[in-house]
Amino acid sequence: MTDTIAVIGLGQMGLPIAERLLAAGHRLAVYNRTAAKAQSLAAKGARVAANPADAAAGATLVITMLADDKALEAVTSGDGGLLGTLAPGGVHLSMSTVSPETARRLAVAHREWESDYVAAPVFGRPDAAAAGKLWVAMAGPAVARERAKAAAGAFSQGVYEFGEDPAAANVAKLAGNFLIAAALEAMAEAFALGEKNGLDRTALATLFGDTLFNCPIYRGYGAMIAGERYEPAGFRVGLGLKDVRLAQAAADASAVPMPLAGLLHDRLLGLLAQGHDGLDWSSIGLAVSREAGLRQGR
Amino acid sequence: MTDTIAVIGLGQMGLPIAERLLAAGHRLAVYNRTAAKAQSLAAKGARVAANPADAAAGATLVITMLADDKALEAVTSGDGGLLGTLAPGGVHLSMSTVSPETARRLAVAHREWESDYVAAPVFGRPDAAAAGKLWVAMAGPAVARERAKAAAGAFSQGVYEFGEDPAAANVAKLAGNFLIAAALEAMAEAFALGEKNGLDRTALATLFGDTLFNCPIYRGYGAMIAGERYEPAGFRVGLGLKDVRLAQAAADASAVPMPLAGLLHDRLLGLLAQGHDGLDWSSIGLAVSREAGLRQGR
Amino acid sequence: MTDTIAVIGLGQMGLPIAERLLAAGHRLAVYNRTAAKAQSLAAKGARVAANPADAAAGATLVITMLADDKALEAVTSGDGGLLGTLAPGGVHLSMSTVSPETARRLAVAHREWESDYVAAPVFGRPDAAAAGKLWVAMAGPAVARERAKAAAGAFSQGVYEFGEDPAAANVAKLAGNFLIAAALEAMAEAFALGEKNGLDRTALATLFGDTLFNCPIYRGYGAMIAGERYEPAGFRVGLGLKDVRLAQAAADASAVPMPLAGLLHDRLLGLLAQGHDGLDWSSIGLAVSREAGLRQGR
Amino acid sequence: MTDTIAVIGLGQMGLPIAERLLAAGHRLAVYNRTAAKAQSLAAKGARVAANPADAAAGATLVITMLADDKALEAVTSGDGGLLGTLAPGGVHLSMSTVSPETARRLAVAHREWESDYVAAPVFGRPDAAAAGKLWVAMAGPAVARERAKAAAGAFSQGVYEFGEDPAAANVAKLAGNFLIAAALEAMAEAFALGEKNGLDRTALATLFGDTLFNCPIYRGYGAMIAGERYEPAGFRVGLGLKDVRLAQAAADASAVPMPLAGLLHDRLLGLLAQGHDGLDWSSIGLAVSREAGLRQGR
Repeated sequence: MTDTIAVIGLGQMGLPIAERLLAAGHRLAVYNRTAAKAQSLAAKGARVAANPADAAAGATLVITMLADDKALEAVTSGDGGLLGTLAPGGVHLSMSTVSPETARRLAVAHREWESDYVAAPVFGRPDAAAAGKLWVAMAGPAVARERAKAAAGAFSQGVYEFGEDPAAANVAKLAGNFLIAAALEAMAEAFALGEKNGLDRTALATLFGDTLFNCPIYRGYGAMIAGERYEPAGFRVGLGLKDVRLAQAAADASAVPMPLAGLLHDRLLGLLAQGHDGLDWSSIGLAVSREAGLRQGR
Repeated sequence: MTDTIAVIGLGQMGLPIAERLLAAGHRLAVYNRTAAKAQSLAAKGARVAANPADAAAGATLVITMLADDKALEAVTSGDGGLLGTLAPGGVHLSMSTVSPETARRLAVAHREWESDYVAAPVFGRPDAAAAGKLWVAMAGPAVARERAKAAAGAFSQGVYEFGEDPAAANVAKLAGNFLIAAALEAMAEAFALGEKNGLDRTALATLFGDTLFNCPIYRGYGAMIAGERYEPAGFRVGLGLKDVRLAQAAADASAVPMPLAGLLHDRLLGLLAQGHDGLDWSSIGLAVSREAGLRQGR
Repeated sequence: MTDTIAVIGLGQMGLPIAERLLAAGHRLAVYNRTAAKAQSLAAKGARVAANPADAAAGATLVITMLADDKALEAVTSGDGGLLGTLAPGGVHLSMSTVSPETARRLAVAHREWESDYVAAPVFGRPDAAAAGKLWVAMAGPAVARERAKAAAGAFSQGVYEFGEDPAAANVAKLAGNFLIAAALEAMAEAFALGEKNGLDRTALATLFGDTLFNCPIYRGYGAMIAGERYEPAGFRVGLGLKDVRLAQAAADASAVPMPLAGLLHDRLLGLLAQGHDGLDWSSIGLAVSREAGLRQGR
Repeated sequence: MTDTIAVIGLGQMGLPIAERLLAAGHRLAVYNRTAAKAQSLAAKGARVAANPADAAAGATLVITMLADDKALEAVTSGDGGLLGTLAPGGVHLSMSTVSPETARRLAVAHREWESDYVAAPVFGRPDAAAAGKLWVAMAGPAVARERAKAAAGAFSQGVYEFGEDPAAANVAKLAGNFLIAAALEAMAEAFALGEKNGLDRTALATLFGDTLFNCPIYRGYGAMIAGERYEPAGFRVGLGLKDVRLAQAAADASAVPMPLAGLLHDRLLGLLAQGHDGLDWSSIGLAVSREAGLRQGR
């Protein structure tokens, strides 16, 4: 465990991941655009780098966890990007939710530099990261994946592999977020139907969360939608919309009609248009209720 | 436990329910249109009735488990129907998946005869019934519900109550089947997206079934849709369509726009139109795949 | 022209039709539930009947123009209904917008009485009726259609025939109203897109109404939707919804997935749920605008 | 009329437009990637340029009519692009169907060179261009528009103006093509409903094309969809899909939920996925029919 790992992007997810890696005994170099976020890690022994290239210098594994495709591309191939210093044979473990297209492009760039790009987007919220309980979808060159999995053990409870093409892991992540949004819409419609027929929304959510759908997504979001509690946002409307758009772009590029994705896009876009970007994406429930004549004042 | 319970309708669900009641020590009178199905129960001590009225004569609780609204209405208020003999104070525990409207109408009819109508549709397949593991959504007059719950203990692992209006339990059941169909559509789209991007469908299903959606619906149907195994049918396209139609009718009557229900309706109707009624309703996956240019010969 | 024609239903459409028939020299017997509406016709020589049967007595042709399936069935086969007195060989020219199913059932009833049922729903508003400019979709037994067409000349500018099965004409009418509603939705979306990109809605409507879509539906409704003028209602939300429902029921019965019909249903149902039943059905434009964040206060 | 006009892009639309301009007495410089297409014009006196810059040299008005955004950008600002030689005060009349975003970007580029960008996409097919019967949606700086309109008189029967922002004309064009596609879907569903209820598809198309929808789009496409004649393609599935995607991108960027656009996208994408890109986009009718169980072998 004497190799150095670089962690770039210390947001809500990146920070606890870095902390888990430190705690597991890894030597860390870290970088964040807003340097203040790196302070707590510095206090625990991490080296604070001046830019992505500085972070990657001397590292055999570079982990990135960034907001979107643009940020990932800048950090990778922009000025002071990590590709400039990542040594041949080095592995870039890219954990952001980005498009398969971006993954394919970055994989090509890494091969030119004789380094490897492994896509490894995760499922789980910041508290799951802090507890080492993330789920990882991983794809990329087999040897590089072995190295990545060894590190991922520090912050995840399971790694699901999807072969050599890094884009596959991003497709899996987008498919997962699409499934979540689909469950939000389904519950929103079901609970509105219940309410207008005199049923208690929470009783309905409990029935389903206890029985057919006794899994985290239905239990957690079910309670939120039943109670119409969309603040504070765990995952904002705009972020959900971003991911649905990425799924739709992948579907369009690979010729897969996804009408349910279209419905979800319109729900989230409508919420955005009406000024509700600050709400959690489960506020699909609000949109459904309002269309049914409920919560008109809201 | 010396009261007599009548069980009318000895199909895939009604038969194991009757067996559980017998095994629990209840005295039973049973009726089925096709009398042969009652033989095994007769051998265990049940009285085989000549018609619903005969079954209900002397019973304090009558359980019905029938195919649809029409069958339920015939058995209840038709010639030789149970309302003709059910004693004042008797309880009709109606477990079929029927429309809230039918429930409301039958509840009125029972009140005229001074008996009670309790709606109690169930979630679970025949094997769950045989194991006493059904989930029950129940609604109706409180006192009658108490008596119904005591009997339901023989075949269910949990009862969820939705108040005095029997129709509420039917709405809950329709909402549940709608949620299942929505999950089928979501998985079908997600897996087609994966496949056309080079992912293994079963690997995707495993990822989701292990993590975010580790609940029976996603695990069981996920494997079926990933493997495109739609035969033998556990629940046929036509039955799924029937239940989606009932949900839509309830939504229409209570002014709840449900675009996802509309999408599901069109999927199932399309399968029917194309001659696939014999497949399981998870063959929504086949419809999605074919639209994406996959499985064209099928 | 000495035969007597009975006209039953003197609403916005029935009254001008009766007036056109009188003006063309026909002898008329008329009936309306609210008798006052018959007075102006009585003053011009029409016999005011006491009920449908009285109107049909002695008539060789009975025209009905009623609100819905229920009213048509009551007037035809209810107490005092026209089937009781319509002579063998008599023709019932049924002009209401009703379901194909109702048409098929009534056709059977007429054949039992040796009379003929001809379905002849119309396109056009009351002013078109008054000007003799309606368009008629007609279906039924060929000989009966000949007689019906002779009379229809008084109030229509064209008759389109769809064969022997009366239900066919009702399907044609429902298809037409579906096409209109589809055009409303399309324009509503197009104009909202224009508005949010800085275009003048009316300029857009003018472009399309002058060129590609220079036909009455796009010109008339285009101006209404562009100007967001939904009152006074020419055809209320609830009536539009009724016809979309009839089209959906026919589609369901004949296994035709119609996703666009589903979308229109949800639009109109949403307007109803939100209390806008008093608006014209072109207020689909309002629903679309509000979803896009426009007209929030309205 | 002694000013020189450059015409760049001599495809199915560009060629007849150039011919109309020549016939109207304009001096022409022309350019096409495949030079052979310019020969007939050269024979009539047009100067054949070596590249877009050569064509624009000395021209006061440059007309471009190209396949897509990429081609337009290359011809305008690429190597040998027209911006390199178009004189200050010159006008670029851009008639291609491109995104509003591209229009906005090119308008900025022209302002930097002190020339003007006027967007002027057209409605109408090649035969309309040859007959001088196109309809033009035009937007851009007012003075430049005056010059553009003078030239447009040679090939159009009407110009509709949408103000100073060129993007507005592109939005109008995309809205128009969206309206056409919506009409295709509506007719496809209506005719399938008719067919499965025993009606003759062509009789239905005739009814609507003669009455409510007596305009070119419904008459022309109505006959094609009724007769299921999708070859030879007037406008291919892939081109229709391109334009629907542009409309969706504009809708997404301006926050306008357009569910009907989503439905059309999925129809066209499905046809593409199933290998039907060679068909006319009215083959939406084929997709609808097949979903309804018709034309399964096709």
